[in-house]
Amino acid sequence: MYRTHKCSELRIEHVGQEVTLSGWLATSRDLGGMTFIDLRDRYGITQLLFNMDDDADLCGRARKLGREFVLRITGVVSERSSKNPNRPTGDIEIQVKTLEVLNAAKTPPFTIEENTDGGDDLRMKYRYLDLRRDKVQKNIIFRSNLALETRKYLTSQDFVEVETPFLIKSTPEGARDFVVPSRMNKGQFYALPQSPQTFKQILMVGGLDKYFQIVKCFRDEDLRADRQPEFTQIDCEMSFVTQEDILNTFEGLTKHLFKATLGKELGDFPRMFYDDAMKLYGSDKPDLRFDMQFVELNDVAKGKGFGVFDSAELVVGICAKGQATEYSNKDIKKLTEWMQRPQIGAKGLVYVKFTADGVKSSVGKFYSDEDLQAWGKLYGAEEGDMLLVLSGETEKTRKRLNELRLEMGRRMGLMKEGDFKPLWVLDFPLLEWDEDSNRFHAMHHPFTSPKKNDVERMLNGDHETMKALRADAYDLVINGVEIGGGSIRIHDRELQSKNFDLLGFTKEEAEAQFGFLLGAFEYGAPPHGGIAFGFDRLCAVLNGQNSIRDFIAFPKNNQGRDMMIDAPSPIHGEQLEELGIDLKKEEVV
Amino acid sequence: MYRTHKCSELRIEHVGQEVTLSGWLATSRDLGGMTFIDLRDRYGITQLLFNMDDDADLCGRARKLGREFVLRITGVVSERSSKNPNRPTGDIEIQVKTLEVLNAAKTPPFTIEENTDGGDDLRMKYRYLDLRRDKVQKNIIFRSNLALETRKYLTSQDFVEVETPFLIKSTPEGARDFVVPSRMNKGQFYALPQSPQTFKQILMVGGLDKYFQIVKCFRDEDLRADRQPEFTQIDCEMSFVTQEDILNTFEGLTKHLFKATLGKELGDFPRMFYDDAMKLYGSDKPDLRFDMQFVELNDVAKGKGFGVFDSAELVVGICAKGQATEYSNKDIKKLTEWMQRPQIGAKGLVYVKFTADGVKSSVGKFYSDEDLQAWGKLYGAEEGDMLLVLSGETEKTRKRLNELRLEMGRRMGLMKEGDFKPLWVLDFPLLEWDEDSNRFHAMHHPFTSPKKNDVERMLNGDHETMKALRADAYDLVINGVEIGGGSIRIHDRELQSKNFDLLGFTKEEAEAQFGFLLGAFEYGAPPHGGIAFGFDRLCAVLNGQNSIRDFIAFPKNNQGRDMMIDAPSPIHGEQLEELGIDLKKEEVV
Repeated sequence: MYRTHKCSELRIEHVGQEVTLSGWLATSRDLGGMTFIDLRDRYGITQLLFNMDDDADLCGRARKLGREFVLRITGVVSERSSKNPNRPTGDIEIQVKTLEVLNAAKTPPFTIEENTDGGDDLRMKYRYLDLRRDKVQKNIIFRSNLALETRKYLTSQDFVEVETPFLIKSTPEGARDFVVPSRMNKGQFYALPQSPQTFKQILMVGGLDKYFQIVKCFRDEDLRADRQPEFTQIDCEMSFVTQEDILNTFEGLTKHLFKATLGKELGDFPRMFYDDAMKLYGSDKPDLRFDMQFVELNDVAKGKGFGVFDSAELVVGICAKGQATEYSNKDIKKLTEWMQRPQIGAKGLVYVKFTADGVKSSVGKFYSDEDLQAWGKLYGAEEGDMLLVLSGETEKTRKRLNELRLEMGRRMGLMKEGDFKPLWVLDFPLLEWDEDSNRFHAMHHPFTSPKKNDVERMLNGDHETMKALRADAYDLVINGVEIGGGSIRIHDRELQSKNFDLLGFTKEEAEAQFGFLLGAFEYGAPPHGGIAFGFDRLCAVLNGQNSIRDFIAFPKNNQGRDMMIDAPSPIHGEQLEELGIDLKKEEVV
Repeated sequence: MYRTHKCSELRIEHVGQEVTLSGWLATSRDLGGMTFIDLRDRYGITQLLFNMDDDADLCGRARKLGREFVLRITGVVSERSSKNPNRPTGDIEIQVKTLEVLNAAKTPPFTIEENTDGGDDLRMKYRYLDLRRDKVQKNIIFRSNLALETRKYLTSQDFVEVETPFLIKSTPEGARDFVVPSRMNKGQFYALPQSPQTFKQILMVGGLDKYFQIVKCFRDEDLRADRQPEFTQIDCEMSFVTQEDILNTFEGLTKHLFKATLGKELGDFPRMFYDDAMKLYGSDKPDLRFDMQFVELNDVAKGKGFGVFDSAELVVGICAKGQATEYSNKDIKKLTEWMQRPQIGAKGLVYVKFTADGVKSSVGKFYSDEDLQAWGKLYGAEEGDMLLVLSGETEKTRKRLNELRLEMGRRMGLMKEGDFKPLWVLDFPLLEWDEDSNRFHAMHHPFTSPKKNDVERMLNGDHETMKALRADAYDLVINGVEIGGGSIRIHDRELQSKNFDLLGFTKEEAEAQFGFLLGAFEYGAPPHGGIAFGFDRLCAVLNGQNSIRDFIAFPKNNQGRDMMIDAPSPIHGEQLEELGIDLKKEEVV
């Protein structure tokens, strides 16, 4: 037997008991005649005491042990003379009687502590050591709990967890598919799913009524900052539902998860149309932890002789409360430069400060104080506040102002830890016109239904009509992060075919790729819709963290590599032979 | 709103209420002035009534509806005149007021009934229709429940569910790996995991202490009868444990699953050493629903002049209770022929019948009645019983007799539905010598530890010693089906290296493939061990069924094809280009 107790369990009431513990040597201190060792396992830390007077040999052996050695000890629980109130086991220590080294350890390349000295690459390579850090373990355990609570809640609502296949068919968005050559069907390939979308719809046609799955999905794309080639979704679908049913169900799930894991009660989630989100926040995922809504100034700022505004499609700004005196001209210049970086691309930045000394503005020579005071009124600005105003083409200007709003929120400390502001964003555009490829793209995906009122227009409308169609689609946003998105699906073959047409599929392509789904729609497909939550992201947001990597046990780096196992890697020629594939000459390694 | 109630919910106390239901038209009957429709959803069936006298137009429309049409109706719950006690909603019916066809349906290619007229291929192609069958839905829902109960139990025991990666590294048993070409690292490949083995061991080195995961695994092998290229495991690993700890934990899990899903209490599981299982049942997964143990006859059957037995390494038989009069000479001849088929390959079959008329045997001329009576005593045979005896090389003869024992069990009706006989089989051989490749193979896998007493012999023994090493490995068998298997792992670098040597790895190969694990063992790896259950198989066994396919929502056929989506399939040339691979000429399709 390796242990009678975990390293978290012993208390003052165990004093006098003989116990066996196993774990890692976290720290060791020699105090002349005594040696103290902190023994660590997943559950906690217990202090071990070795006494020269009691057993010089044993104490001598204990002194030779290094960090991260794996030990089994037996000993007697005793009360500490100097207690540690910060540790659950801090009232006791173990007077060790026997000591066995279960495994030795080389000195770790970085310290196993809250704030480790290990860089990212080193920690990824020695992930097994990084995983011993309390913070990383807490994240992994949090993730496990969050998954369990998700499952408990959804099954309590009659959802069935169904495993959909991983070896599926490559889709037209194939460039992002990972493919898998088939040995038994040489020259043919499976693809790994980017999502179980078509399968969950098939399950609805199959009468499963309420489906969910916590499932890995795969996307072979150039990895930006915080993406992973494999990621996890809470994937859901329901039959005989409207948007309202779905929002209620998954608002319920989200509330449950916050309550069960953080003990936090969230109120009812506000809802906002996509168009309003873009107009008021310049983003389809506004961070509602702070206000600072956009106010458009076209009516009051144009026609006063300031050419930049006069020629702009949109003049729009935000009000930064209490910032008038915080920003010197030099600060404003820096902020303007920040906005002019290529990532954002603003041409300039107009400010209006309302100070005790009156109104000050970079466009003071074009506008009277009364003009500017009138602007201020539109924002509810008071003395001490500062307007920041951008102008230009509508869409771009909104995007830039969104960046500025978020930056000001950060600088002003308005994104408070532990503050959670969920939001439903509704009624996205159905289709986006892409000038480059001269065709429509699906804003959500090709299976999304238009709003009921738009069905007729979609079936019979002209090209311009298509641009105005609204989708029965919705996103859940928390603190400016998109947690999930979904839609009511098309369940009618004719409408689905029309959508494929609009998206530039030939009849043959549509049939080859999605014939099974079009076929299924002919055999009694119920109205249905669903949603998918990004599970990695949800873990991070609930913990107020930005990086999903800290919530994945074995993440890949930005080149899609697993640094620990060193994958991907070349494979044997015989394996290629068996699969019926060759490397292109220039790729032979 | 699509429904106020599910099709399973309405009872006599709802009479008079107006309700809305949605579902599929299961059956329809015209009785002159009235039309009855059974409306079906996942939860149940409710009878709808359309009355010519009440609303001729509505009734007329109802008569035109076909099977599997998707309907929404509103109506009033009323008490039936002729109740159906076999259906939970059998006391009521709905007098329909409004009817909306949500979707039409073509006539399904097979009937959506318990015993469908659809063949396997047709049902796989139209899986969305097959999924509407009550039996298939029950299986899928059972699977979902079983997974949830597994998770509840294991998390209650401090297990953490950790997602291990799907894009990993190809291993030396690589011929069975599915590989995934990397676009970002051209010429290199990921592999899909055959199991998360090394990752779960790394998690133990990382201090996670108790890990589990319900996870898809992949094996690209020729598909025998009931295998799938992707299959699901309950995968587990624990630190600081002995075999005893693991058996207790997973016996606990198994008992919980039987109790939670079937309401069945299983007693404590018997345990049997591998050697005894082979000797007594000729199998490492004996079916203990019936007895019929092997009894070896070498001592009593040899040296009496019957050359076949005299020259045999082993003479061994079973006793079929009460079968003496059931088997005519012709029946015995047929049974002998069954045993002589190439799949089994027995040369002959000796019988001894104990009848009211005395002993009768195919080897009567070599043995006296007293000789044969003495055999009978060894089996505890009584009048009416029949011995069936085989002889030959030990291992082969045991295997053949195992087949015969199982066949007799089937014929004699000894494998009773609802009877569950679990068994732990312990201490498998560590290594198997393979004459063809002239090297050892790991019987379980290369990470399995020898029994503690065998470690010294393994490190220092000669070739013959290696053959006799026992592994600290165990299988859980239920009703003759292997449900799971596992082992205590090696956690010492030296011992693991020795094992790789024995298995024919060069130092370089071992380092290239498993360097990360060998490295991890140097940084304080704890003693650990684990187990994996075949989840698909577990679903089938709990339901007394043989085929795992019925418990998989979207199974593949014996050629590894998904018949519904028609995968695998060719991919575009540009995709190959991007991946840096070519098809071999003969595979271009």
